[in-house]
Amino acid sequence: MQRIQISNATPAPLLITGSIAYDDIITPRGNGEKLIGGSASYASLAASYFTDVRLVGVVGNDFLNKDRERFRIHEIDTKGLHTDESGPTLFWKGKYHENYNRRDTMTIELGVFANFRPELPAGYEQTPFVLLANIAPGLHLHVLGQMQSPRFVVADSMDLWIEIARPELEQVIKRVNLFVVNDSEAEHLTGESNVIVAGQKLREIGAKIVLIKKGEHGALLFHEDGLFALPAYPVTQLHDPTGAGDSFAGALIGTLAALQRTDFEAIKLGMLYATAAASLTVEAFSCDRLESAGITEIEARVKTLRTITALPQLD
Amino acid sequence: MQRIQISNATPAPLLITGSIAYDDIITPRGNGEKLIGGSASYASLAASYFTDVRLVGVVGNDFLNKDRERFRIHEIDTKGLHTDESGPTLFWKGKYHENYNRRDTMTIELGVFANFRPELPAGYEQTPFVLLANIAPGLHLHVLGQMQSPRFVVADSMDLWIEIARPELEQVIKRVNLFVVNDSEAEHLTGESNVIVAGQKLREIGAKIVLIKKGEHGALLFHEDGLFALPAYPVTQLHDPTGAGDSFAGALIGTLAALQRTDFEAIKLGMLYATAAASLTVEAFSCDRLESAGITEIEARVKTLRTITALPQLD
Repeated sequence: MQRIQISNATPAPLLITGSIAYDDIITPRGNGEKLIGGSASYASLAASYFTDVRLVGVVGNDFLNKDRERFRIHEIDTKGLHTDESGPTLFWKGKYHENYNRRDTMTIELGVFANFRPELPAGYEQTPFVLLANIAPGLHLHVLGQMQSPRFVVADSMDLWIEIARPELEQVIKRVNLFVVNDSEAEHLTGESNVIVAGQKLREIGAKIVLIKKGEHGALLFHEDGLFALPAYPVTQLHDPTGAGDSFAGALIGTLAALQRTDFEAIKLGMLYATAAASLTVEAFSCDRLESAGITEIEARVKTLRTITALPQLD
Repeated sequence: MQRIQISNATPAPLLITGSIAYDDIITPRGNGEKLIGGSASYASLAASYFTDVRLVGVVGNDFLNKDRERFRIHEIDTKGLHTDESGPTLFWKGKYHENYNRRDTMTIELGVFANFRPELPAGYEQTPFVLLANIAPGLHLHVLGQMQSPRFVVADSMDLWIEIARPELEQVIKRVNLFVVNDSEAEHLTGESNVIVAGQKLREIGAKIVLIKKGEHGALLFHEDGLFALPAYPVTQLHDPTGAGDSFAGALIGTLAALQRTDFEAIKLGMLYATAAASLTVEAFSCDRLESAGITEIEARVKTLRTITALPQLD
């Protein structure tokens, strides 16, 4: 497993907790069945290009060796990946409509995820970088409660928790260093349709740093040192958007762990790698494209992003 | 009238044709009546910050001296602004819905615009820079037919013409140097919902350079030298989006005329000024904010845009 070399720093370990799932996916460009998915799968595979990843999650008695093998090839530490033999892995079936502008959940079967209480293996509680990938905010708090003063914690959320677990979500927002959310979720959380104002409001309710993902329209960072706006990578082969946001979050904190830095400029750089990782994920089902890309393609996409967003230079 | 000093070049004259209208506007934040509007009004006022503007259009017997005065204060040459005493100025009434994500035309009364055939005053046919602001593409072709080898022509279009004047629109697209369109129009024209692919397709059907405006999500430039993606200015006080695209087009070509340059880097710089001009327009009704801003505020917004889009610098 070759790592992206961003600086001369020794990459710090990164703990990622979230869901591991099997997905059935229907898209205008084809369907896929029993695809490995879940927020922690995408995030861990993306982050594995940058640093040592410690995966904390649960799978069931149907989890295939070939999918375990994906984590092994990416040298992801799976000591915290619990296999619960009492039932199947979390299952999600979703459908993307024409132009991918809407997706519906058709089936969700929690399986062993229903009883998931993430417990950290010995030593994990000292991991300096932590990604709370999308799962119930109550589980995020349970993991945070076990950590011993982590250096930098990122939490990624989704719409569902705004409806059914808002108090816990607000606790998470206040306790982490960087809160990642997409534009419609930011609107839902703040009641504000202007994304700039929504980002400011999230900081007012206690988020130290806010990152709003806008899909094909890029991402916005709200930081005490300023605002940063980054366009998306120019994807022309959209196939399956599932996991784009999770890959984004994984590569983002992966960059910070690799740099051993958490300042504004480091987060900005993380957004470039995050955008590159997300752009790969959407070009194929599941984590396939993200896994096959390798560091050369990720670095090439970061270079392209730098080129297409470079400010005018007049001589 | 103070001009923005971008380089040491002497600004070249710029001819702008389009509509001059009175607008009644209903927005979630208030209503306005008999506001000066129309594509050429916004574009001329925006461009006037950069160079000498020659306005070609028509107004009716109801056109007010106070609105003529706006052009005079901005030193816009109105020799080509015909007053047709036979009827009223073009009138448009539109309504923006909640969150400004949809607008409906409630009334349109063509008035003297119905008989408008733009005829250029003597000398205008040699103007080096030309903006065909949004009006029927047949009128664009009529103006182009009178020009003597202009150096650089920009055309801005809107959805209506795709439906009712597609053959003329395609002629315009092929004959101008830079074709400006918004994202939904680009999709409508090409049948392609991916904006990157839509931009590429517009170049395939004959547009030399394509610029796709995405409103609050910024703009994309498709040029033989590469792609350029620019986020929008972070507007927090959206009041009336009318004329944003026209202001964008006016400031864009105004920058090129001021620089006497038409290369990729010059167009990129034009997009920064265009974005700044559009961001001012949307903060008030009509051209009010655009007119009152002055060069200091436009330059400050360009500086802000440069700051929030600056790529990460790691030491």
